[in-house]
Amino acid sequence: LRAEADADADPETTPEMGIIMGSDSDLDVMSGAHDALDELGFAEQTDFRDAPDARFTYETYVVSAHRTPELMYAYGETAAERGLDVIIAGAGGKSADLPNMTASIAYPLPVVGVPVQEKSVDSVIGMPTGAPIVAVDAGKSFNAALSATQILARRHEELEERLVEYHEKLVSGVAEVSRDIHDMGVESFRDSR
Amino acid sequence: LRAEADADADPETTPEMGIIMGSDSDLDVMSGAHDALDELGFAEQTDFRDAPDARFTYETYVVSAHRTPELMYAYGETAAERGLDVIIAGAGGKSADLPNMTASIAYPLPVVGVPVQEKSVDSVIGMPTGAPIVAVDAGKSFNAALSATQILARRHEELEERLVEYHEKLVSGVAEVSRDIHDMGVESFRDSR
Amino acid sequence: LRAEADADADPETTPEMGIIMGSDSDLDVMSGAHDALDELGFAEQTDFRDAPDARFTYETYVVSAHRTPELMYAYGETAAERGLDVIIAGAGGKSADLPNMTASIAYPLPVVGVPVQEKSVDSVIGMPTGAPIVAVDAGKSFNAALSATQILARRHEELEERLVEYHEKLVSGVAEVSRDIHDMGVESFRDSR
Amino acid sequence: LRAEADADADPETTPEMGIIMGSDSDLDVMSGAHDALDELGFAEQTDFRDAPDARFTYETYVVSAHRTPELMYAYGETAAERGLDVIIAGAGGKSADLPNMTASIAYPLPVVGVPVQEKSVDSVIGMPTGAPIVAVDAGKSFNAALSATQILARRHEELEERLVEYHEKLVSGVAEVSRDIHDMGVESFRDSR
Amino acid sequence: LRAEADADADPETTPEMGIIMGSDSDLDVMSGAHDALDELGFAEQTDFRDAPDARFTYETYVVSAHRTPELMYAYGETAAERGLDVIIAGAGGKSADLPNMTASIAYPLPVVGVPVQEKSVDSVIGMPTGAPIVAVDAGKSFNAALSATQILARRHEELEERLVEYHEKLVSGVAEVSRDIHDMGVESFRDSR
Amino acid sequence: LRAEADADADPETTPEMGIIMGSDSDLDVMSGAHDALDELGFAEQTDFRDAPDARFTYETYVVSAHRTPELMYAYGETAAERGLDVIIAGAGGKSADLPNMTASIAYPLPVVGVPVQEKSVDSVIGMPTGAPIVAVDAGKSFNAALSATQILARRHEELEERLVEYHEKLVSGVAEVSRDIHDMGVESFRDSR
Amino acid sequence: LRAEADADADPETTPEMGIIMGSDSDLDVMSGAHDALDELGFAEQTDFRDAPDARFTYETYVVSAHRTPELMYAYGETAAERGLDVIIAGAGGKSADLPNMTASIAYPLPVVGVPVQEKSVDSVIGMPTGAPIVAVDAGKSFNAALSATQILARRHEELEERLVEYHEKLVSGVAEVSRDIHDMGVESFRDSR
Amino acid sequence: LRAEADADADPETTPEMGIIMGSDSDLDVMSGAHDALDELGFAEQTDFRDAPDARFTYETYVVSAHRTPELMYAYGETAAERGLDVIIAGAGGKSADLPNMTASIAYPLPVVGVPVQEKSVDSVIGMPTGAPIVAVDAGKSFNAALSATQILARRHEELEERLVEYHEKLVSGVAEVSRDIHDMGVESFRDSR
Repeated sequence: LRAEADADADPETTPEMGIIMGSDSDLDVMSGAHDALDELGFAEQTDFRDAPDARFTYETYVVSAHRTPELMYAYGETAAERGLDVIIAGAGGKSADLPNMTASIAYPLPVVGVPVQEKSVDSVIGMPTGAPIVAVDAGKSFNAALSATQILARRHEELEERLVEYHEKLVSGVAEVSRDIHDMGVESFRDSR
Repeated sequence: LRAEADADADPETTPEMGIIMGSDSDLDVMSGAHDALDELGFAEQTDFRDAPDARFTYETYVVSAHRTPELMYAYGETAAERGLDVIIAGAGGKSADLPNMTASIAYPLPVVGVPVQEKSVDSVIGMPTGAPIVAVDAGKSFNAALSATQILARRHEELEERLVEYHEKLVSGVAEVSRDIHDMGVESFRDSR
Repeated sequence: LRAEADADADPETTPEMGIIMGSDSDLDVMSGAHDALDELGFAEQTDFRDAPDARFTYETYVVSAHRTPELMYAYGETAAERGLDVIIAGAGGKSADLPNMTASIAYPLPVVGVPVQEKSVDSVIGMPTGAPIVAVDAGKSFNAALSATQILARRHEELEERLVEYHEKLVSGVAEVSRDIHDMGVESFRDSR
Repeated sequence: LRAEADADADPETTPEMGIIMGSDSDLDVMSGAHDALDELGFAEQTDFRDAPDARFTYETYVVSAHRTPELMYAYGETAAERGLDVIIAGAGGKSADLPNMTASIAYPLPVVGVPVQEKSVDSVIGMPTGAPIVAVDAGKSFNAALSATQILARRHEELEERLVEYHEKLVSGVAEVSRDIHDMGVESFRDSR
Repeated sequence: LRAEADADADPETTPEMGIIMGSDSDLDVMSGAHDALDELGFAEQTDFRDAPDARFTYETYVVSAHRTPELMYAYGETAAERGLDVIIAGAGGKSADLPNMTASIAYPLPVVGVPVQEKSVDSVIGMPTGAPIVAVDAGKSFNAALSATQILARRHEELEERLVEYHEKLVSGVAEVSRDIHDMGVESFRDSR
Repeated sequence: LRAEADADADPETTPEMGIIMGSDSDLDVMSGAHDALDELGFAEQTDFRDAPDARFTYETYVVSAHRTPELMYAYGETAAERGLDVIIAGAGGKSADLPNMTASIAYPLPVVGVPVQEKSVDSVIGMPTGAPIVAVDAGKSFNAALSATQILARRHEELEERLVEYHEKLVSGVAEVSRDIHDMGVESFRDSR
Repeated sequence: LRAEADADADPETTPEMGIIMGSDSDLDVMSGAHDALDELGFAEQTDFRDAPDARFTYETYVVSAHRTPELMYAYGETAAERGLDVIIAGAGGKSADLPNMTASIAYPLPVVGVPVQEKSVDSVIGMPTGAPIVAVDAGKSFNAALSATQILARRHEELEERLVEYHEKLVSGVAEVSRDIHDMGVESFRDSR
Repeated sequence: LRAEADADADPETTPEMGIIMGSDSDLDVMSGAHDALDELGFAEQTDFRDAPDARFTYETYVVSAHRTPELMYAYGETAAERGLDVIIAGAGGKSADLPNMTASIAYPLPVVGVPVQEKSVDSVIGMPTGAPIVAVDAGKSFNAALSATQILARRHEELEERLVEYHEKLVSGVAEVSRDIHDMGVESFRDSR
């Protein structure tokens, strides 16, 4: 990572977004972020030196605050130099320290914390004054990716449009269900499922 | 508000950040955001048509989700057109709906939610998939302002520098206290306070 | 909905009760309300312009506070004009805003809130002073329908009678089980099941 | 109470609303209901046989579920016959049984439960299927009175108007504070208080 | 029940212990009490007028506080006259009022409350000063029966002996397992299971 | 204590009830038990060899489960032989082990546990199957004394009468307050206080 | 146990570590400690008089605080004399008294408490000032064994080395997974599992 | 710190115990550890190069996980080389990461975590498998110092004796209070205070 940080790469070839999680057992929850980014047209970059064609990309790592603190430090310290603009960090357990330690180390890069379990919320969100992190609800990695994209969209209007498009699809979906349930009546609606 | 939205104002003359809260009784908690923004060189804009000299400004409103739902709707709908880039929304009570309803209405503008009381955390953070909000811990309006500035700093490098400066002051403070407590010993340190 | 509101329909042909829920995934919980209303002789009205024969009717919609805030506003604002007398609103998640936002918008129409999950109770019930909602316990949509009928029964004595009839059946059921368990003894009673 | 129930009084001379609480130590919390009813033009009736001039009235009793169960039974059983249309029942402690026992006994009269303490919420709201109660949030006796009035307003249009008037005053208040805080700026606003 | 209460039966022919529960769905949890009483040599009395041979007996009823408040009242009021010495009352839900309402009505007869679910504990135990109940932990109907027997044993030395015998069996069981796990080692012990 | 246990004293000269608490800092909470016993005519016995005149007496000790486990064992083991019929044991903290360890050691003597703080409830009540304790709510030492007296009253009819007398006074008190608040109206009632 | 304590055995032949649990139903959770000790080269000693060859050994017992308080007392009192250096004690339920009672009795021997269930945490950790215990998180018996070994390692450098070796394996594992997930991309990584 | 670590100091001249806390606002809670160490004859070492005469010493630092992550890293990494044998680490807030991050970095040195507030318990105790920490209850820094001394006492018999002496004083204190409260009676005892 430190080598990549020194490489002084062209920002268009580095991932905009880093997704890290405390363990590969968090992947089922965290893959919601990948789903959202696919939906929004991001590509996953698996080789730092070889960017995919897509304009916006993300990378994925497993980093454990408690089992590999050195790796966490290295990732956080080099994040800005490696060209990242925002980090999504997820962790489980009661002492879900990856998101907030990363927010402390990578500061002033914004970090969106994802509590992987309900019991991780307090630990992710509970930062002292002066040490900022923003968090989403337990398990809501999909929303974390939307929020991270909202942050990037401050600079990239193209992403704003993709967010609006996604939302319009969502609204149509709810409206259609609403009409169906009303016009068919509850019983027929349930039978139709 | 709707008139201001139609005014098509020059983005340099409109506030970048909007601070809204559910009641003026939330002001004691929410003024932490004002403290942080003062610290970072933002100015408060009290007349939409007459911008202060400072490059970065914010505005403040009281908006109640449950007592003035129309006002909340108007604020959220016009936020982007009125030139805002990020909203900090705080509310208290168990049903602290201002932050998340505003996030839904002002989408895709990013909203940083501040639960004004401990019991407001669940209501602020608990959005369904597809409707993003990011939140800070209960009462941490100071950190909300830092986070909102981190978001703006994606586009304005000047703000990144201010964030770093603020942090360096913070670190020196802790380091100094640490040296004092160690070198004086606990008893003398306490006496010196 | 706004067209229906303007239609100035005869109150006897419009639904007395509106049942709304945040998502069709809430239907399993909310269908308890439909069961209770069937039990009490209500009919479901699936076409606003074509009332069923039954004197008392209800309608069903899916409305999401966070994904379709405009739809929620439209429903709440037109409810009284469309002839509704009481709304049952259910939502899940920690930020179950549909019931209380609807109560704020449809005021002074009474709204009975149904927290679809245990974690939704605080958000549904926690309204500030001046913004009323009444709520039932998590998942108790059946009771919400009884309560909504108790409200209607203030004006329609016929509904009072139906409520009493329902209750008498309930009491007989408990009394019968009690006699069985006592007279058969616990072991035989269990075997008989 | 039973004598009054037998008296077959003219409904216009009996209280529409009964307010009961588990102990006179609950009065500080429950007096919010009295404030709201005063605001809405209700009068307190202190002599069942001598109604005040106001069209809408309420009465107040202390009834303890656990220390005076007989009194609670008598009150609930005679409520309808004594001319009441809706009961507001408040109780504190973890086992706040007055509201829900009264709801069970006075059925099908609607009862609005007020948990006097935060820890009373579960006990007030947690009724089994078939035994309805509606509840407001802990301590929100003011809102309970608004809700009870919403119920009465199904039959008495005059009350609907009073509810709307009250709400308009409330909205103006918030709007005024919002304008002040925005136009004066946070610092001046605080100084002006 | 009232007839039985008037019957003035010989205390040796009436059940010493009454077991009541809020619903037959509570039976799976409450049958622990029956198991304990079987273990201690009690017999179930299924006909009040026809006592079994065993010296100590119990009876079982389903009584719902919220669905059959009159039945609960009748049971509590007649308990002492019907010859009961102690009542075990179990109920589920958040508003588990059967145990404490029965304790209030049957006073000064001692009542051992059994919260059928974890969420019932607060409601069962939370009585105001002056209205006594004693409770066991959620679901611990077996222990409730032991405790009720401890109460009876104040007067009947024979029961004290049975309690001691039961306990000795229990201790031997633990001691045997302890020796096995130590002497076999954990792995062999687990294989032997 | 062991000497007293061997003394084989006349049961009429030994205390019926033992009150123990984990620390003298629990005394403010536990003195509710002394108040109740005074009310019911019990006397405190301060010298085991010199009984007061009153027929029913109690004694008081401070015993810490965690700081003086030997003392706790000695007290529990000798309780029955020293003539006690029931023990009231109170403890604070999250690990309030005095009541349940005493219940385990003094078995089959009944023990009424008093959680001195809210956070002590779980620890006091949470016994495994086969090890009975009964508990009252946090801080309710007054009720614990009533419950312990209900247990003794199984054998001593005189105590049953005293319990009934106490209760009648309590009921009159509530009834009087209820009449006052109704007849005076809320405002005058508050002024009269 | 008392005989073994008197035996004055050579410390090299006695177990360094004692593992006790409240019930054999706790074994599934507690066997994590056995796994960790196996990993670190400890052997289980199943006969106090016949030590295995391994330099470091442990023993296992089932001891119930509430069902066999005498056994718990004997174990704690003799622990130091029997040559133990540290005890790992696990218990479940809300009143998980085995760890803290053992810590009180075996003092000044260090005891590492393992709450077997989430609800046991408070009871295990909540000791009063002056009565020390240290605890791990619910179910983390594996970590308890690591911690107990850290304690022993203060005296036995060989154990320090084994702890470091274990950790290096752990770190390599995480690093490998991290590289795989990054280089393969999330989708391929999941397919490869 | 790194210079001190390289200094290769004589273990008898370096502090055995390091006390660190997240902020000087934690000092009121953490000074319990200092009180306990004073009681046990430890001295505070305020100059690493100039040891006090006492055989056993400790040092104190303020280290913030979130505001000064580099300092935390440096402290943890150098702890063993600087001659420390055990670390007591306290932190407040919901995300009390100092104790567990230090435990991860300083591994295999044992760390005793002190949650400075009740809400810090989960975050301190909740480590993943493979990353050990032991914790005491919220605010119990006094006990943390006793536990840390128990750990040191595995190697230094002298400390074991001091622990026993401290405990004997504690027991005498409780016994004296117990005798007073019993022999004086509750009322006189309270008056004597």
